[in-house]
Parts: sequence; C-alpha cells; structure tokens
Amino acid sequence: MSDHIELVHEAIDVGAAYESIRDPRCGGIALFVGTTREVHEGRPVAQLAYEAYEEMAKKELRKLAADIRERWPDVVHVCLIHRLGEVPLAEASVLVAVSTPHRGEAFAACRHGIDALKAQVPIWKKESYRDGAAARWVANRESAVPEADPPEVRS
Amino acid sequence: MSDHIELVHEAIDVGAAYESIRDPRCGGIALFVGTTREVHEGRPVAQLAYEAYEEMAKKELRKLAADIRERWPDVVHVCLIHRLGEVPLAEASVLVAVSTPHRGEAFAACRHGIDALKAQVPIWKKESYRDGAAARWVANRESAVPEADPPEVRS
Repeated sequence: MSDHIELVHEAIDVGAAYESIRDPRCGGIALFVGTTREVHEGRPVAQLAYEAYEEMAKKELRKLAADIRERWPDVVHVCLIHRLGEVPLAEASVLVAVSTPHRGEAFAACRHGIDALKAQVPIWKKESYRDGAAARWVANRESAVPEADPPEVRS
Repeated sequence: MSDHIELVHEAIDVGAAYESIRDPRCGGIALFVGTTREVHEGRPVAQLAYEAYEEMAKKELRKLAADIRERWPDVVHVCLIHRLGEVPLAEASVLVAVSTPHRGEAFAACRHGIDALKAQVPIWKKESYRDGAAARWVANRESAVPEADPPEVRS
C-alpha cells in the first residue's frame, strides 16, 4: 500500500499515475482528472495558474490520503497530484486516483478525494481571461470561502 | 463530441485514452479501469482471457455510449475500450472514461458506464487458476445469469 503524493510544475502524466497504482490485489482503479475549462461563470478563460506553499499543501495531501484510507480500509494505493504554475486550456491541474479490490469503493474514495482536496488543500488559483479583463485570484476551494489575495507564497 | 469505442488485443493505453477525450469545454474527466485481480471468489487467479463476437460487442458499446449521452446530455466525449484475449494479473481489461463540464456528471456517467457495460455487453471471460484447477468460462456479467459455455466465437 502506498501513497503517491506529488506537486508538479509540468504536465501531469495520467498514464504514469495509473501505472503507479495498478496492483494484482485490485480489480479496479478510479481516476479523476480536473482540466482547465474555457469558460468559468460565463467568462472566457485563457489559462489558469496555481500557487501553493508547497510544504503545507503536501502535508494536507498526505492527511487527505490518510483520511481516504480510514474511510475505505480496502483502498490499496492512493495517488494525489496537483500541478502548480500555469495550466493552459484542456490541460490537467489535478489528478486523484485510487486502486481497490472492488469498484464501488474506488468510485466512492476517488469522489471523496477530489471533493476534499478542493475543500481542504490550500492551493490558490489565478484566472486569466480572453476578453481582456484583469486576471484575478479566485478561491480554488468550492466551499463558500470569501475571495481574497493569496497568502505570500514560498515555494 | 465523439465516442471512442474500441476492442483491443494488446495492453490498454490509459494515457492515450485520457488524451483522446480531454477538451477545453470540460472541467473534468472520470476514468475507471478494470484490472485482473489475483483472487476471485477465494480462488487464486493466474490470468483472465476475454472473447467476444466483435461486431456485436462493438454495436452494444455504441448503444451504451448513446445511452450515456441521453442520460447526461452535458457529456462531451465518451471512451469505451475492452481488451480481448489474455489479460495477465494487474493489467487492464476494460476502460470507461467520460469528459464533462462539471465533475458530478463525470463520476455518475462513468459509474453507469462500467456497470452497464458489465451487465449488457456480450463479452465472455475465462479464468485460469494458479492452484491447478481447470480453467473455466464465467459470466463477465455481474447480474445473476447462469454460467454456461460461451457461444461460438467469431472474431
């Protein structure tokens, strides 16, 4: 059983992430990949950029992996990867994957993983627009946290 | 919008499947990969082999893709791949992936896709065991269909 936790500054390799968690004990692997969408709340997005205090973000990702294992003890491997820096349209910013003996747990653990990652892991997102509007930092979190400037980033 | 339907006789390329359905209109891609597990109902599995009348299996996969689009009209791309022939331990036999604007639909459509594929697509599975027991054909379907010899296979 392993936790594969990573913050990357280039494209996320989805095939390699899959390879890192396949296992003869498992009958199923569920993966979710979040990609940069061209529209957000009606505005034309040019690209996104993500920033984090990496040490803290990794610590929260490790806590999330432990949380997943506690909720679904049959989970064999967990893979949590977030890209930082600029992420062009249609490219992946985040990947959550789990391998389990049976697929019901794989789907449930993967869904919880991405929801909790978005809600809990302190990563900031900057949207740049194609309509000339000023770029702005928005909460990566999907809960109702107020938008604000990101904390000073050390990376 | 495209349906990527394939029956393959070699390893499923998960990275390529992901690449085939990522799209700037989408914020999320859910993938499920079914892999050969070393134990099935308590018996030590050596490998699986899958056979199908390919024309009929592809027709059912196309119907399933249409069914997914009808249930989740926001789905952008659908990818359904099944491997035929021998599938060693820990290797992928089946992949279901969908790309959608929002992740809730991606998970729901992907989960329905693999459940319906297992229930509806006529693909036969042969289990070989490591304990010397005779290999046997088992229903790939997970519904309570009786086990029987596979139909004569044309491929």
